[in-house]
Amino acid sequence: MEVTRKNFQSVLPQVEKAIAEADFICVDTEFSGLHASSSFHISPLDTPEERYQKLRKGSSDFLVFQVGVCTFCYDEENSKYETRPFNFYVFPRPHSRAAPDCRFLCQSSSIDFLASQDFDFNKTFKEGIPYLTSTQESQLRDSLEERNKQYNHFSSPAFVTPDSGAEAVTTKGPINIPEEHKDFIDGICNTVQEFLDKEGEETLPLPPCNGFIRKLIYQTVRQRFQSGVHLAAKTDEKKQRYIMVTRIKTEDDMKKKEEEKQAAELAEIEEAIGFSKVIRLISQAGKLIIGHNMFLDVIHLLHRFCSPLPENYEEFKALTKCVFPKILDTKLMANTSPCKEVVLSSVLGDLLKQISFTPFKKPEVVIPEDFPQYKLDDSNLHEAAYDAYITGICFTALSDYLGSLQDPPVTHVSSDAPLVKPFINKLFLMRIPDIPYLDLTAEDVLPNREHVFHVTFPKEWKAPNLYQLFSPFGNVGINWIDDISAFVSLYKKDQASSVMSTLCKRDSPYKIMTFELFKYGMPERDSKKRPHPVDSSEEEPKKKKHLNVDAPVFVSRSRSITPPTPEENGEKMEEDNLAPDSTSETKTEQKMFEEPAW
Amino acid sequence: MEVTRKNFQSVLPQVEKAIAEADFICVDTEFSGLHASSSFHISPLDTPEERYQKLRKGSSDFLVFQVGVCTFCYDEENSKYETRPFNFYVFPRPHSRAAPDCRFLCQSSSIDFLASQDFDFNKTFKEGIPYLTSTQESQLRDSLEERNKQYNHFSSPAFVTPDSGAEAVTTKGPINIPEEHKDFIDGICNTVQEFLDKEGEETLPLPPCNGFIRKLIYQTVRQRFQSGVHLAAKTDEKKQRYIMVTRIKTEDDMKKKEEEKQAAELAEIEEAIGFSKVIRLISQAGKLIIGHNMFLDVIHLLHRFCSPLPENYEEFKALTKCVFPKILDTKLMANTSPCKEVVLSSVLGDLLKQISFTPFKKPEVVIPEDFPQYKLDDSNLHEAAYDAYITGICFTALSDYLGSLQDPPVTHVSSDAPLVKPFINKLFLMRIPDIPYLDLTAEDVLPNREHVFHVTFPKEWKAPNLYQLFSPFGNVGINWIDDISAFVSLYKKDQASSVMSTLCKRDSPYKIMTFELFKYGMPERDSKKRPHPVDSSEEEPKKKKHLNVDAPVFVSRSRSITPPTPEENGEKMEEDNLAPDSTSETKTEQKMFEEPAW
Repeated sequence: MEVTRKNFQSVLPQVEKAIAEADFICVDTEFSGLHASSSFHISPLDTPEERYQKLRKGSSDFLVFQVGVCTFCYDEENSKYETRPFNFYVFPRPHSRAAPDCRFLCQSSSIDFLASQDFDFNKTFKEGIPYLTSTQESQLRDSLEERNKQYNHFSSPAFVTPDSGAEAVTTKGPINIPEEHKDFIDGICNTVQEFLDKEGEETLPLPPCNGFIRKLIYQTVRQRFQSGVHLAAKTDEKKQRYIMVTRIKTEDDMKKKEEEKQAAELAEIEEAIGFSKVIRLISQAGKLIIGHNMFLDVIHLLHRFCSPLPENYEEFKALTKCVFPKILDTKLMANTSPCKEVVLSSVLGDLLKQISFTPFKKPEVVIPEDFPQYKLDDSNLHEAAYDAYITGICFTALSDYLGSLQDPPVTHVSSDAPLVKPFINKLFLMRIPDIPYLDLTAEDVLPNREHVFHVTFPKEWKAPNLYQLFSPFGNVGINWIDDISAFVSLYKKDQASSVMSTLCKRDSPYKIMTFELFKYGMPERDSKKRPHPVDSSEEEPKKKKHLNVDAPVFVSRSRSITPPTPEENGEKMEEDNLAPDSTSETKTEQKMFEEPAW
Repeated sequence: MEVTRKNFQSVLPQVEKAIAEADFICVDTEFSGLHASSSFHISPLDTPEERYQKLRKGSSDFLVFQVGVCTFCYDEENSKYETRPFNFYVFPRPHSRAAPDCRFLCQSSSIDFLASQDFDFNKTFKEGIPYLTSTQESQLRDSLEERNKQYNHFSSPAFVTPDSGAEAVTTKGPINIPEEHKDFIDGICNTVQEFLDKEGEETLPLPPCNGFIRKLIYQTVRQRFQSGVHLAAKTDEKKQRYIMVTRIKTEDDMKKKEEEKQAAELAEIEEAIGFSKVIRLISQAGKLIIGHNMFLDVIHLLHRFCSPLPENYEEFKALTKCVFPKILDTKLMANTSPCKEVVLSSVLGDLLKQISFTPFKKPEVVIPEDFPQYKLDDSNLHEAAYDAYITGICFTALSDYLGSLQDPPVTHVSSDAPLVKPFINKLFLMRIPDIPYLDLTAEDVLPNREHVFHVTFPKEWKAPNLYQLFSPFGNVGINWIDDISAFVSLYKKDQASSVMSTLCKRDSPYKIMTFELFKYGMPERDSKKRPHPVDSSEEEPKKKKHLNVDAPVFVSRSRSITPPTPEENGEKMEEDNLAPDSTSETKTEQKMFEEPAW
């Protein structure tokens, strides 16, 4: 169901009901871009914390254009799911002149990608539902209170412009009316006089005019008519500001009018919270929330609708856990044994196709009449609600597959079954082949990277020079950092121990050190050359807990960086999350592109 | 005439003809925002150079959504203008994976303003004409050349992916095909074999697949079919990548195919230059280019379609002069004597209304049939071509008014008449009441600001405290810098000399210094607290040429900061350039808003 500013208030009770009845809730977002700049490009050697910092700094300035929320409710009797897909267009339209005026980034390739999927930008910008984080909401309430206090304080006619919003002006005294405006202001006064003389209408809208003229009107009309009128600035549909004159008979009238204005301002804030209410409902319901490759979705949902993203990584985990107490990433499920062995591609569209065939079984799903009757072809792919819808379908198919392997087999695995538990509160990490997930409730698993080396070299060097250098140890993978440095990973891990002794040579044109030393030791290196400058808290050398383990039993994905698998490959980001990122403005970027990340 | 990517190539000759025949050309742009943050808010005390730096840093990350170009050609015989308004939707769509992938800012209030004017965002994002600056064009040509060189160098089948764009991959050797993909790759080879066996089609598109699979296909197909096929990656309409197989019979065929590919890539760059060609045509024509309040338009036109904005202010002047050798700002004309005396509001829409009445005479204007027959009501206001159109009409009315004051009166003042000359190459400076314009061809005129003082004070202070402090000197205007500092201007300039001696007191809770000392001396002040940190070149104290003059004869607008005039007022920015800027997230901003800038 398409939800915009126009029908949001009327649809909200339905949304609330759907959430209350749901067994689990799937979410997906469409946004305006991926990486603010190449310095935030993800690397297969990122730690979970580094990845978070890159996404926080490099992605959170993009805007969410659309949020899909699809509730799933299992009907035991008929063994089918009832699902309700809601497609919310959202936009942080400043609801008043006091409201935050958000600046956001767009990435041309992402916009172009959405355009190619026939995304309706007009709907987002013209009819998007507004929203506020809790912080913004408090600020607005505080500033409203402050303004009302000030108004009461300075409420002598000569000192105050009883304007709505931030426009209230306190000046030393009346301004002289410039000669050229005298006729106009006189005309306005006459109009007001006529309005007051003639019973009937309670309000009189004055013609739109600029701030200076409005100021002259406030001053003159209030001086002349004193407490016989109430003036307030309004904005018309064309965004033009005008003054609304209201007839006032008694002092109580004036007080009432002022109270009405304040109530209206509070209602305005209430309305401005908009879509954030949906996220609050989802959060409070405490149900399982499911996304596909949802790290970036989580980041955007928190940042735009809840609270600014914490600089501290552990605080991010805590915040996520607090807002979304139970989340599950279907991409992690698909990339984990035993699903991994039967899933060829975990790109969402591909995954959906695969669960139509054995060993999977597609669940039976019904959509109520007043919702779009989605077909499982590609025609709606990348519409947020559709993506949320098929994420839920994939989840049931994957979990039922887990059930089918049980002894005895379980036909229907519910979303709170023990089989699903191991996946809860873990986020899939894109293109980090040796770290299966980010664990929201425990310390991250850091892999052994003894076969990875950091090399600096002359600017002229290209890939063949590095292959040549490492030829005694077999094939290698290269991850470019910049023009003059890269991480080199051995395919044959058992060769790792002899690399330093063989390649560390005095007077060589290159310098080499272990990944460990580079990342956590850094005894000599200029800190400016660090690959991904993160928080200052990160700048100091520190020992990380290194778990030289196979990840927990249910995850058999603790592969080394070699050999490459399709999941780690180029198309991932674009197919799961908008568009390709293909800037090649610098030699570095081009180099990085020439060399796939394995 | 609406021009999008769809009709751009066919309309271009008409545009060229219109420019060639024009007497003058009017331009206007619509963009995605105004100020990146509050630190770039303009101040009435800015110098022209400071203003440039604020716009460069605070506005140039926004995108141009629409450019209006309207040519005017005077028909002597019939005493009327023929005008051709072109409305270009523009968008920097990355034309290939090697093309620049621009990130741009949007400001919610500006987007909301455009939405309220019913701007068609879908048309911009889906059908916008692409463009490149000259710098980007050169980079693309260089990188294409480089790629082709590399291709020739590494063209052994095992070493190269003959992919288009930046995707070319050089690896050490063939990758092993993972078990799960063997069937698929075998299937592809069989399809290619069938295609080769059967005469007929010259090309065979393979199904879309991800980068890793494509790599496997390149490797396997090239090994098996050697020089019998040519492979190239393409992108389909859904942005999916696939491989196009072409039948190759001889070595010459292969060479020809490669040449064709390179020619296609060159043509692609040519097409990507897109709208920048129009700006180049306008520039080369050397005709008078007219805008209304056009400083920001000039900045965006240069930055997006010509060249990155110079950090150095003098270089900016030189670049502007080079690209637009003759420009004129109608807002400057309207705000300069003798027009100023008869113009009540120089906001474009208001100006148009005023020129319908004496002493102005609206010119007779015809629009050819195949162009929109604009009516002079407000219905098209803020459509770039319409705004350019009415700018031209205002220009003729204003210059004819200048003519009417001559002795004997001149009925038609042509765009190259001596009466117009004084306005050429001067840009109007919004809300700087004491500096009439930025002069592109001479040193800027800097006014006397001896009646302005810089004050720092306790955080608790608000406007009344400052009014109180300055009460011995009469009324004052306040320009807030931040929570604890402001510029205070005396209305009674003759009191200036006694301020320092009266207010400079030991142990006072405030500190005061002259504008001059603060701006150019800064003997004690922490440079971090400077109001508008500009270039490092600005950081050093320097003596500016101060012209204590009335500006040149034709400009009688060298008013002091007091009294306020409507032109300096709040509505200006929004009405001339998109939307209001009304963030009030911080106390500072709110303070700044509470106090109008006079």
